[in-house]
Amino acid sequence: MSYTIQQVLIPSPSGYQQSGYAVVDVQIEGDRISAIAPQLEAQGTVIDGRNKLLLPGFVNAHTHSSELWQRGLIPPLPLELWLAHLYDFTPLEPEQIYLSALGTAVETLLSGGTTVVDHLVLIPGRERETIAAAIRGYREVGIRAYVAPLIQDEPFAMALPKGDHKTPALAASEAAPTTAEVLELMQDTIEQYHCPEEGINIVVAPTGIQLCSDALFAGCIELSDRHNLCRHAHLLESQAQQMLAQEKYGCSAVKHLAEIGYLGSRTSLAHCIWLTDADIELMATTQTTVVHNPLSNLRLGSGIAPVLKYRQAGVNVTFGCDGSASNDSQDLLEALKIGSILHNVTDRDYRNWLTPRETIEMAALGGAKGLNAADQRGSLAVGQQADLVLYDLTSLSLLPRTDPIGLLVLGRPSQAVDRVWVNGNPIVTDGQITTLNTTQLRQDLFNQSQWVSNLSSPTMKEMEVRYREVMGLS
Amino acid sequence: MSYTIQQVLIPSPSGYQQSGYAVVDVQIEGDRISAIAPQLEAQGTVIDGRNKLLLPGFVNAHTHSSELWQRGLIPPLPLELWLAHLYDFTPLEPEQIYLSALGTAVETLLSGGTTVVDHLVLIPGRERETIAAAIRGYREVGIRAYVAPLIQDEPFAMALPKGDHKTPALAASEAAPTTAEVLELMQDTIEQYHCPEEGINIVVAPTGIQLCSDALFAGCIELSDRHNLCRHAHLLESQAQQMLAQEKYGCSAVKHLAEIGYLGSRTSLAHCIWLTDADIELMATTQTTVVHNPLSNLRLGSGIAPVLKYRQAGVNVTFGCDGSASNDSQDLLEALKIGSILHNVTDRDYRNWLTPRETIEMAALGGAKGLNAADQRGSLAVGQQADLVLYDLTSLSLLPRTDPIGLLVLGRPSQAVDRVWVNGNPIVTDGQITTLNTTQLRQDLFNQSQWVSNLSSPTMKEMEVRYREVMGLS
Repeated sequence: MSYTIQQVLIPSPSGYQQSGYAVVDVQIEGDRISAIAPQLEAQGTVIDGRNKLLLPGFVNAHTHSSELWQRGLIPPLPLELWLAHLYDFTPLEPEQIYLSALGTAVETLLSGGTTVVDHLVLIPGRERETIAAAIRGYREVGIRAYVAPLIQDEPFAMALPKGDHKTPALAASEAAPTTAEVLELMQDTIEQYHCPEEGINIVVAPTGIQLCSDALFAGCIELSDRHNLCRHAHLLESQAQQMLAQEKYGCSAVKHLAEIGYLGSRTSLAHCIWLTDADIELMATTQTTVVHNPLSNLRLGSGIAPVLKYRQAGVNVTFGCDGSASNDSQDLLEALKIGSILHNVTDRDYRNWLTPRETIEMAALGGAKGLNAADQRGSLAVGQQADLVLYDLTSLSLLPRTDPIGLLVLGRPSQAVDRVWVNGNPIVTDGQITTLNTTQLRQDLFNQSQWVSNLSSPTMKEMEVRYREVMGLS
Repeated sequence: MSYTIQQVLIPSPSGYQQSGYAVVDVQIEGDRISAIAPQLEAQGTVIDGRNKLLLPGFVNAHTHSSELWQRGLIPPLPLELWLAHLYDFTPLEPEQIYLSALGTAVETLLSGGTTVVDHLVLIPGRERETIAAAIRGYREVGIRAYVAPLIQDEPFAMALPKGDHKTPALAASEAAPTTAEVLELMQDTIEQYHCPEEGINIVVAPTGIQLCSDALFAGCIELSDRHNLCRHAHLLESQAQQMLAQEKYGCSAVKHLAEIGYLGSRTSLAHCIWLTDADIELMATTQTTVVHNPLSNLRLGSGIAPVLKYRQAGVNVTFGCDGSASNDSQDLLEALKIGSILHNVTDRDYRNWLTPRETIEMAALGGAKGLNAADQRGSLAVGQQADLVLYDLTSLSLLPRTDPIGLLVLGRPSQAVDRVWVNGNPIVTDGQITTLNTTQLRQDLFNQSQWVSNLSSPTMKEMEVRYREVMGLS
């Protein structure tokens, strides 16, 4: 298929740092951007681009799709006590995984995202079905998906620092899978599903240092090298994890991950809040990407990631929504807005603050870099894959007319996404997903859920006293 | 007119602190809620309330409507340099004031607000026309409006602290109006427009200590007492204002305002970021309301208002969007979400964090309290004025079903507002404003604006060097 978008506004071709705009025609041929020029001979489907803004698609660079089932559910709690709820109320049916993958894809697409990195929580004992269900959903919608099965080889009880205690806070109620079992699952998953040319990528993604052995990290590095896969993990999301790393390794988590070779230009790490200046330096020298999840970090009280420091140190930073149980929305533009303005209270000198242009560059090009794909995506340039989003600038939420990118990032765009292409395929037209019946999706999500109040987590009950003690809360 | 909303979900009648819900019929008769019970005899228009949530309307308790014309326009800058841009690019036609009042009202209504407090920036030399235009807009839409003309009797040049300098940073380019002129304007405005029974209230609202004499505050107190008006102002939004207060009064701004009698249960103050513990105590004892504008405070790098401390001290806190040039959206639900979760990073003990229920109580009842109207509005109770919002819980953004109030506050509701009544009048039906042609509004906003890039503010150029020096920025 081919398209000619006529007279569309794009950021000045001289790059994101310029504040200008150009009005151009943009052509898509097959899966690529084939031409950008002031005036092109029309070919294929002609689209009126007047009063519209064309940008490369953003990356929702860290989420957990199945948390959609717990959105709005868990009270305001810090990560460790919130996780207790998450495990107690996690969805257990592959059909649910499929539906929440659809929902996550739809919300991402309608807020400027063309790629999702799904750090997929696996149903215990039904891991392969979980992965199959999510991939089925992403294939149907047609979003570019990086499916990162969330793996661990230690029981949940180990995730809390022990402090002065000899035993963990929780009895280990479930047996963790062995390292070999987990790696076999990953090997099978890669062989069965990894297919970049069809838009499905498998990512190795130990949940993080809190629940993974060095052997698991080593196995993932080996798989990643052998199959040229991206690597992902959580990193130092909470102060408790910082304490745990010291207990476990006697050094910072970043230093340990660097030593065992997990960092690098194909590695993106979510959160990265409790890092020292030395850690930040290591992130920079290894070319590791930080995925900033501002809304989740606020909701869980995790802290404010030092994003301005990362940028000054030359670390690539991009944005994620995180799962819907800790942000409660998969609106990527919301993550860009808050992830941009939040840092203005961390540095008194406004000359260091993120501009709206820098923010979209982080979300598009920064997202592609974090997936080792900046040569393929993230820029409006001939030859790049056509992962594109066309914004209607006449939405009431973007009026009156001022600076289009300022409105998009600092406003609260509503129904502003007019069209989306992924790999040259049209996924959204006239603001509607074309690959999916969203009325049916709403009905399915409605039917398989019920109103909840007075939620009580047995696991939280078991661990709260110890948590408060170890964290120094009276 | 009368309405019977059948089988609608409401927060447990035992109050916001309970997590339960009830399914009830709610009746509106004229301007009041006339009955709430499990089953009522239908009368008037019957509305199916199934899978819908009914809440009292929220208050957009601090905004500047005409800033809509500068939304998305001003780069990330601290208050004082941002203000330089605001003054350089302010709208100058009363017709624009009318349109931006409409836009502000529409966005507020479609995000759960039924009342707006408009700290209205006045066009120099056309102050009366400005006020008339805004009120015309609010009357047409039918939102409850508290119009608070933004007054001052000192020139903009005085708003910066002098530091070690003898002269202000800026030449006083404009002559400020005299105190008498300003008070005469207010007197006329009150006589002409103040009409609570028709939903239009005039508020006395000196911009703040930075540009107002004690005589102006005294005159406003007198008018407020004589006509039973609410009082409003900005308070300690920036660190520069804290420095300025010390230079001007030799004490904190709060202490000074308390001494001259401006604080009290009819007074609401926007921002309140740079307050000491002693100041917070004064806010509590005087029963003054804090209006928290979290998005504006982040965008301008003003700081994080100590909202959890206010709550612990017994200070009433509610939410505002602030003007669209410093937040760039009038979505009140966005202000609730960020104004709630932001504080989780300011207090390590999660037991102090705001819950979604507390947040909606602050937005509805807290908003009414700040306008001295809690006996009339802010609760779902028989006899209260019918300022009500009905949310459709089957919007994709609120699915799957979990806790409705959790979804509303922590999610990112899109097209969730189904119906709105103000004073018993239907303003929104099936998600559409019924009192206004919004297609025409979009067209008008579009036609009277143009795309902008490369914005440069002469006033900022004049003051930036001094600003950096006084604020200790190298």
